[in-house]
Amino acid sequence: SAASHMAEGSSSKLKEFPHLSGSHRALMADLIGAIEDRLEDRLLPCVLPPDVEYYRNQSGTSEGALLVRSGSPDSSINFILASWLHSQLPTGASLNIASLSAYLRPSTDAPNFLIEFIQSSPTSLILILDLPPRKDPVLNPDYLQLFYEDTRLDSYRKTIEELPETRPYVMSSLYFRSLVSPTSIISRVDTESGGPERMEEIIKNHIGPVARDVLRVWLNECACKEREVGMVERVDLEQRDELVKKKTIDIDLGSSLPRLFGQEIADRVVAAIQQVFEA
Amino acid sequence: SAASHMAEGSSSKLKEFPHLSGSHRALMADLIGAIEDRLEDRLLPCVLPPDVEYYRNQSGTSEGALLVRSGSPDSSINFILASWLHSQLPTGASLNIASLSAYLRPSTDAPNFLIEFIQSSPTSLILILDLPPRKDPVLNPDYLQLFYEDTRLDSYRKTIEELPETRPYVMSSLYFRSLVSPTSIISRVDTESGGPERMEEIIKNHIGPVARDVLRVWLNECACKEREVGMVERVDLEQRDELVKKKTIDIDLGSSLPRLFGQEIADRVVAAIQQVFEA
Repeated sequence: SAASHMAEGSSSKLKEFPHLSGSHRALMADLIGAIEDRLEDRLLPCVLPPDVEYYRNQSGTSEGALLVRSGSPDSSINFILASWLHSQLPTGASLNIASLSAYLRPSTDAPNFLIEFIQSSPTSLILILDLPPRKDPVLNPDYLQLFYEDTRLDSYRKTIEELPETRPYVMSSLYFRSLVSPTSIISRVDTESGGPERMEEIIKNHIGPVARDVLRVWLNECACKEREVGMVERVDLEQRDELVKKKTIDIDLGSSLPRLFGQEIADRVVAAIQQVFEA
Repeated sequence: SAASHMAEGSSSKLKEFPHLSGSHRALMADLIGAIEDRLEDRLLPCVLPPDVEYYRNQSGTSEGALLVRSGSPDSSINFILASWLHSQLPTGASLNIASLSAYLRPSTDAPNFLIEFIQSSPTSLILILDLPPRKDPVLNPDYLQLFYEDTRLDSYRKTIEELPETRPYVMSSLYFRSLVSPTSIISRVDTESGGPERMEEIIKNHIGPVARDVLRVWLNECACKEREVGMVERVDLEQRDELVKKKTIDIDLGSSLPRLFGQEIADRVVAAIQQVFEA
């Protein structure tokens, strides 16, 4: 049908990442491919309306694309969400945000997956890469041991930390700071002296391998392993998951989208994401 | 009596901080004084055995002192604990650790207080300053708002972060990383080029004012404010507090004390702390 054809067309728009550099685009395509290939039999097709799969403001200075695939109801996958945003800033620079996240259902307590790139110039990048925990690690040291110590996730954090061009980045939201794991990679990469070529190299040879490895850990140890979750625990997980999704929309999208796209488009996109989050 | 005289003598040993620099000693004395003055009518005397209030190894290369005052049973104060450690390392350098912490009872859910200095040379310092939360901030955004946003604690973190000699320090224990708040100050200060004088200046003019302010926030907003805590919540707090204290002993003291003082002294000191933690 025309509708499904349109949807397919704009969905592939997400995977184009038209404003990213070569190695950055290749990495995003790789990560989305890895997650879709591995979870294919558990993912439903993207059913976002075309004007949410791809959207832009009137003047054409800001555009964005979204891909959301819910997990089949009997799977442990809640949904995967990929997105990009591009905006020409009044300063002449442009802002590019690209992200991929995956949320699990309360039938497992395993961590979620998140990678986000925020780029405000070809030589400056903020990287957020984490398996956000779904339980309080302080109350659950075994959880910390299983998903973060035994998986040696901290070695990936160290790899990125040791690059001379990176330094730790502190997110402005205290809630997001609380949400991430103790092995989260939250770094600012600046390659002013090495130029955009050095940024390409860092994404290709350093961030890329780490991101692929962390995603593989998530796929193997979180998404594709059965976990015993008791009834009480399940209720706790449901409550926490819901709160996290609500706060994520409030803090993240609630403020940036209206600023970049105007209230009408922002409302439409946020409503579509909310629908997925609450399903 | 002779026993109380000995106890008094060694208790003042703690407050001497004989191995710290002038401004560092003054700051520690100041902080302990501020907490004792404000909470005086709620604190019991220190009842540690003299050989735990002050202890040293056979060869005299390592010594330490401890001061613990429990809160009166009807108060919200569980205990305050001050300590220092000094050890001559085989490398010729010496290690100095000085700390002050305060734990509240489950009659309130307010955060605890913690400051710790780890110094391995006169120009190198690790500073940990925090109000560790006693509830999962992800599940309790109001808690985050009340104790961390409204108190503007992040401004103190920024003040320290902006010093040219500081950079973020990452603790090796994932559990401790999870334990601290999103406004925790965990920094390494290096003044190799400015020498020990610059370290003195940083402690006196930058760390000192911040530490005093954060302690004041803790005293005003956490230790001295009534909180409504329901029965179920109280049981949760008790469970979490106990686990945190147990893990803190295991991770922190369980490994470092035997190494510095031998197993016998370490066992004696750890047992005394355990008794306070479990009381």
